[in-house]
Amino acid sequence: MTYRAPVQDIRFVLRELADLDGVLALPGFEEISDDLVDAVLEENARFVEQAIAPLNRSGDLSGATCSDGEVTTSPGFRQAFIEFGQGGWQGLQHDQEWGGQGLPKLVGAPASENINSASLAFSLCPLLTDGVIEALTAVGSHEQQLRYIPAMLEGRWTGTMNLTEPQAGSDLAQVATRAVRQDDGSYRLAGQKIFITYGDHDMAENIVHLVLARTPDAPKGVKGISLFIVPKFLVNDDGSPGKRNDVWCASLEHKLGIHGSPTAVLLYGSGKGDVGEGAVGYLVGEENRGLEYMFIMMNAARYAVGVQGIALSERALQQATAYAHERKQGQALEGSAGPVAIANHPDVQRMLHTMRALTEGSRALAYFAASAYDKSRHHPDEAERARYKSLYEYLVPVIKGFSTELSLEVTSLGVQVHGGMGFIEETGAAQYYRDARILPIYEGTTAIQANDFVGRKVLRDGGAVVKALAAEMRTTVAQLEKAADAGGADSQGLALIARRLAAGVQAYENASKFVLANAGDKLRAVFLGSVPYLMLAGVVHAGWQMARAALACAQHANAGTATGFHKQKMATSIFYAAQILPRAEALALTVLEGGVAGDYAAVLPEA
Amino acid sequence: MTYRAPVQDIRFVLRELADLDGVLALPGFEEISDDLVDAVLEENARFVEQAIAPLNRSGDLSGATCSDGEVTTSPGFRQAFIEFGQGGWQGLQHDQEWGGQGLPKLVGAPASENINSASLAFSLCPLLTDGVIEALTAVGSHEQQLRYIPAMLEGRWTGTMNLTEPQAGSDLAQVATRAVRQDDGSYRLAGQKIFITYGDHDMAENIVHLVLARTPDAPKGVKGISLFIVPKFLVNDDGSPGKRNDVWCASLEHKLGIHGSPTAVLLYGSGKGDVGEGAVGYLVGEENRGLEYMFIMMNAARYAVGVQGIALSERALQQATAYAHERKQGQALEGSAGPVAIANHPDVQRMLHTMRALTEGSRALAYFAASAYDKSRHHPDEAERARYKSLYEYLVPVIKGFSTELSLEVTSLGVQVHGGMGFIEETGAAQYYRDARILPIYEGTTAIQANDFVGRKVLRDGGAVVKALAAEMRTTVAQLEKAADAGGADSQGLALIARRLAAGVQAYENASKFVLANAGDKLRAVFLGSVPYLMLAGVVHAGWQMARAALACAQHANAGTATGFHKQKMATSIFYAAQILPRAEALALTVLEGGVAGDYAAVLPEA
Repeated sequence: MTYRAPVQDIRFVLRELADLDGVLALPGFEEISDDLVDAVLEENARFVEQAIAPLNRSGDLSGATCSDGEVTTSPGFRQAFIEFGQGGWQGLQHDQEWGGQGLPKLVGAPASENINSASLAFSLCPLLTDGVIEALTAVGSHEQQLRYIPAMLEGRWTGTMNLTEPQAGSDLAQVATRAVRQDDGSYRLAGQKIFITYGDHDMAENIVHLVLARTPDAPKGVKGISLFIVPKFLVNDDGSPGKRNDVWCASLEHKLGIHGSPTAVLLYGSGKGDVGEGAVGYLVGEENRGLEYMFIMMNAARYAVGVQGIALSERALQQATAYAHERKQGQALEGSAGPVAIANHPDVQRMLHTMRALTEGSRALAYFAASAYDKSRHHPDEAERARYKSLYEYLVPVIKGFSTELSLEVTSLGVQVHGGMGFIEETGAAQYYRDARILPIYEGTTAIQANDFVGRKVLRDGGAVVKALAAEMRTTVAQLEKAADAGGADSQGLALIARRLAAGVQAYENASKFVLANAGDKLRAVFLGSVPYLMLAGVVHAGWQMARAALACAQHANAGTATGFHKQKMATSIFYAAQILPRAEALALTVLEGGVAGDYAAVLPEA
Repeated sequence: MTYRAPVQDIRFVLRELADLDGVLALPGFEEISDDLVDAVLEENARFVEQAIAPLNRSGDLSGATCSDGEVTTSPGFRQAFIEFGQGGWQGLQHDQEWGGQGLPKLVGAPASENINSASLAFSLCPLLTDGVIEALTAVGSHEQQLRYIPAMLEGRWTGTMNLTEPQAGSDLAQVATRAVRQDDGSYRLAGQKIFITYGDHDMAENIVHLVLARTPDAPKGVKGISLFIVPKFLVNDDGSPGKRNDVWCASLEHKLGIHGSPTAVLLYGSGKGDVGEGAVGYLVGEENRGLEYMFIMMNAARYAVGVQGIALSERALQQATAYAHERKQGQALEGSAGPVAIANHPDVQRMLHTMRALTEGSRALAYFAASAYDKSRHHPDEAERARYKSLYEYLVPVIKGFSTELSLEVTSLGVQVHGGMGFIEETGAAQYYRDARILPIYEGTTAIQANDFVGRKVLRDGGAVVKALAAEMRTTVAQLEKAADAGGADSQGLALIARRLAAGVQAYENASKFVLANAGDKLRAVFLGSVPYLMLAGVVHAGWQMARAALACAQHANAGTATGFHKQKMATSIFYAAQILPRAEALALTVLEGGVAGDYAAVLPEA
């Protein structure tokens, strides 16, 4: 199975839905032309298809291994990462000041999607490194930035996030790793960190660990956590890696999926290495503000993990589509001389359309959000920057939660399209199903996204973003109704989209009202419905993007510029409306019935 | 993680929802007392908890292996199967004439659920053997019955179903294995069969393969397929296994899950063994009627696979519930001094209630169907037998499709409840997620169930069963309304159930009308919605059973006989109504919008 980057759909979304022109016109992006964006997308496609995609299956079969405290990655990963660094892919959307290319997130996000489609396990290394670069760019000292960022941008070093510990899980208040200040201003760290993605590996010269730890006199809970840089090798004054620091891989987890990505238990301060007892670390920013800093990279990583969901969905979709056209089995519904490709069977069509609708819908929403991010940083008008910032921050938990939950459904359908062959590992469909299962968990479970969504994104501003979005979506409904009334080949389809989007917006408004009205005295009922509410927002917002896509396609049809791609997109948009948007009604009812159900929520057997 | 058979819930369903008393009063079950049923359920629980449950993880880690054409099963499987046979578990619901115990399906089904919960991989061997016993009981010659059935009932021999081949998949018209009649009336078979569950193993003295093959002059397509018995060892006149027949395991599949269950490629007629060239086979029934006979065991197996879905859901639920009570993390929503068990967090409660509602709802529906099966065979009134037969046959594809699709959701939630630990294989939750994935595929994919459901169960009788069920469900709605109006602690909950069940029935009726009205000229639109329609039927019928459960609990509350179990069941029923029944609306809309969507169904990219 070969993977092809979905460049055509990406281009369509960027231009027709995510206002690429508007983003490129922003201050700071003057030097980036439309042609440059195309060239980047094409070169990215070429690179990931040739250099990364072949690693997907081999990384699954021969995962990373740990021996004597150090990790050996899967065959080919090291070479591919060198090429990745040399190609400048790590620096795509980072500041030019440190050697990055300074492209908008709107261009960086699709590049990230493609590399994740090619190999999710491989791509976790750059994903975490991105987060470390982003955190140090925001809160590192100038000296720290100079010392660490360029080497990471060049792909010579990589980064990790060290948050949790065995007793802590998602509850970082329980972090216990100790950091003791030394006379020279550095710290010595001791403790155990778990679930550290690419916590050790042999793909780069050095690893920059960002580590949450407590100083001896720190307050309890999350307000006593500080953030430290702990390089695997101390950095010499000339920037070269020096003494081996006291951080070691104790073991790798035996996981359901992403076998190519080493998930390490890291020991800090076991006394091995060249630095004596305790891992040498350097405080980032001020003491006790570690969690706040970590959230900088968490937010970037949450968006990126949402994109991973889209990436895996795309790959599963491509494989299922290819198989469904190749595999001949059974007569056509209307009769046929011999067996037909299973892509002709209605339920296979339903599954393929569902996979495509979910993939393209979540992609459109994610890039719409990337555009908002770029505007929130570059728009000349401060009020507009603030407006886009609220919109982007509202959308991040939706993109993380919704796109990753959908990837479970899409990869599961991908197995189902293959029938019995899907259950056989050699086919490859099962790997996507296994790999996807981590996505709604890491970087904050879907419940944590939903808490963030309800608590910080909906309640805190009293539903301001919600109301603005509902109004925008209703405008789209009106446009659809007008387009449907105008007649034409797709008018029934456009009317269907208008009907279902209108109902979806109504469901979203009803559920939002419930959330806003009951946050005071029925908090448990509200949070009982928080995941369904987040999914509802995702279904409706992605459906809105698909509806906008249908309008764009209808315009092309009217102008005589519609291609096969546009006809395909119209069909997918209609399917989204007919088969995905109805979920909004069910999700809203689930939220609304939470009042009574909430009274029974604690009635659970003791196991 | 220890597994405990859910005997209390099984007893409740049998007595309060599935009319155990009525079944035991039927002719043929006179000797079976209520106490005997209890004793069987308790002994079954003891046996599977002690002898089978420990095999679940070890079978996953050390799957079966194939060497020199023969299979060695996981450590412990052989001994457990011997105990299974000696305990009489294979014969539970088979005819006493051949040595079975002649218990109702209503007792056999829960016993089957429990053993599948204990180890799905192990239980596939008795499941397939059950199918062979059922087929030979129905269509074998008396001599064949005498020769093969008692040995299988005693657990000395096992059975397999050999249907598909590499080129055929679900399309049995393409079966190519050849069977040539010999002068002595036997046949010689040659060909390759794939996906043969327990196609070879070392757990029994002999294996009875039922094989679909074509005689040289058979018509093309499914009307030219005959059914043959091919024993692994020819049977001597004294009933002992004799010459090694020419059927060999070529390889085992490397699967996503059920590693303990050998899935074999079988070669017939490769010239090895003691019988010369060609596997010796014996025709079952008449030539060219093989598919019809195979459906006898397919229908039994489809029901049984539906029960497997419930079984896996139950096991995942038990593990998640235990973990959620044990794992302390985060503050309570309303504030707490320290970390609380995650079972206190609203979204964990939502997930656990969802898992429980789906598990108990699908169980109640399956046993309701088992009761109908028993009545269809034993009711003294012929019209009643026919009525129950229609009901049971209507429900089989729903139970197979719905319960197995739900098991994907439940096992996925089971992983999610564990957070990051769920992705680690040692935790065990991931195994259920992997194992479950085959259930909506084997014994007919969900699409095939939906085709059967729409084509043979709804359209063929013009919706007669649908109308009868809708009326019965509306009666339950009226009872709920009355119970809610009577006041009491749960009246709001009962009103919620009434409201949502009424809406669910309406959705079911609307979708049914669409299916019945459009089967003539919009067949593709109908079949595009066939899986959603099947799932809709499942959601509403299981919701009906949960509503009946709530009524029974309310009666216990009024009578002062309510226990903690009844309070729990009431809460689960309310959650089913609040969180699962709303799906009916979405599924119905999906069916109803199929008219327009159907016009675009074939618009798929070429891959």
